[in-house]
Amino acid sequence: MSAPTLSPDQVNTALSQLPGWSVKEGKLHRQFQFGSFVEAFGFMSSVALVAEAMGHHPEWFNVYNRVTIDLTTHDSGGITAKDIALATKANELAR
Amino acid sequence: MSAPTLSPDQVNTALSQLPGWSVKEGKLHRQFQFGSFVEAFGFMSSVALVAEAMGHHPEWFNVYNRVTIDLTTHDSGGITAKDIALATKANELAR
Amino acid sequence: MSAPTLSPDQVNTALSQLPGWSVKEGKLHRQFQFGSFVEAFGFMSSVALVAEAMGHHPEWFNVYNRVTIDLTTHDSGGITAKDIALATKANELAR
Amino acid sequence: MSAPTLSPDQVNTALSQLPGWSVKEGKLHRQFQFGSFVEAFGFMSSVALVAEAMGHHPEWFNVYNRVTIDLTTHDSGGITAKDIALATKANELAR
Repeated sequence: MSAPTLSPDQVNTALSQLPGWSVKEGKLHRQFQFGSFVEAFGFMSSVALVAEAMGHHPEWFNVYNRVTIDLTTHDSGGITAKDIALATKANELAR
Repeated sequence: MSAPTLSPDQVNTALSQLPGWSVKEGKLHRQFQFGSFVEAFGFMSSVALVAEAMGHHPEWFNVYNRVTIDLTTHDSGGITAKDIALATKANELAR
Repeated sequence: MSAPTLSPDQVNTALSQLPGWSVKEGKLHRQFQFGSFVEAFGFMSSVALVAEAMGHHPEWFNVYNRVTIDLTTHDSGGITAKDIALATKANELAR
Repeated sequence: MSAPTLSPDQVNTALSQLPGWSVKEGKLHRQFQFGSFVEAFGFMSSVALVAEAMGHHPEWFNVYNRVTIDLTTHDSGGITAKDIALATKANELAR
């Protein structure tokens, strides 16, 4: 069974705890900027481990020191608690 | 001094040795597909090491087992030998 | 509850399916050799994702193109099915 | 030509700027401890990029949230400026 999608109100409540994240084209979206490619890729490696362990993978783009992440739950057709959890973890790892 | 851009003929000659790569919106472009996110991210880690050592970084996108790479040399305003070198290395690492 | 340790016979049966692995100081042990540090670290990244997803982490050592892995299940006090599973996955990823 | 080894005085001066590092069995040595395997492996990925770009690779060991690094310059038969540089970078990345 797929995770239930969150209502717009639930998403907004979650966003209030997720500095830097917004909703863009129906997905949780954030751009991270680091001091270098070295730091950006270290962050990506940590996020990759978390994503694989969650069984929930990002759509992400990197060029040099920037990492852009978009999160949605394809099985559910929208944003779910899994996306909030991965976004929360990404913010923790970017600190 | 920035690397010289390649002529369309030079790019085409290079592409004949680069299975899977084409020119898309003025950049060297390829999509790689792997058996899993685990394999895709292992490939990305290897390419990241090569890119950092070359001082030449890709624009790349990943979702699950797919990795899309676009290469151009911003300082030069087009495709250069550096892009060919990184594309060649990516193909070797994807085998 | 911790996973049950395997008997010496069970370990030997598992080893027959695990080329390159042996028991060393009570742990599953293998040294992998790659063509370069780039390849070795790509392998380590893939194994790291698998390990985190399993909640079961290796003791591992790397220098240049060599990766040495030792596996045991600390909670259980010996080699368990988790170690066999991670060793099997490492062999698949090293191919 | 290989890099010249540093004198004990030069090494000690360098160590005064390298919190956590000491000389152990003739190598620069430090153990790093992180909050989790996820953080430890993100650090390792960043260090791997730096090492490959320097053409100077660590001897390193990881188990769970601990990363132990030993640095020496094999071509030179001792500790050189390359080891100091990689240790310095590792400390920056661990912050």
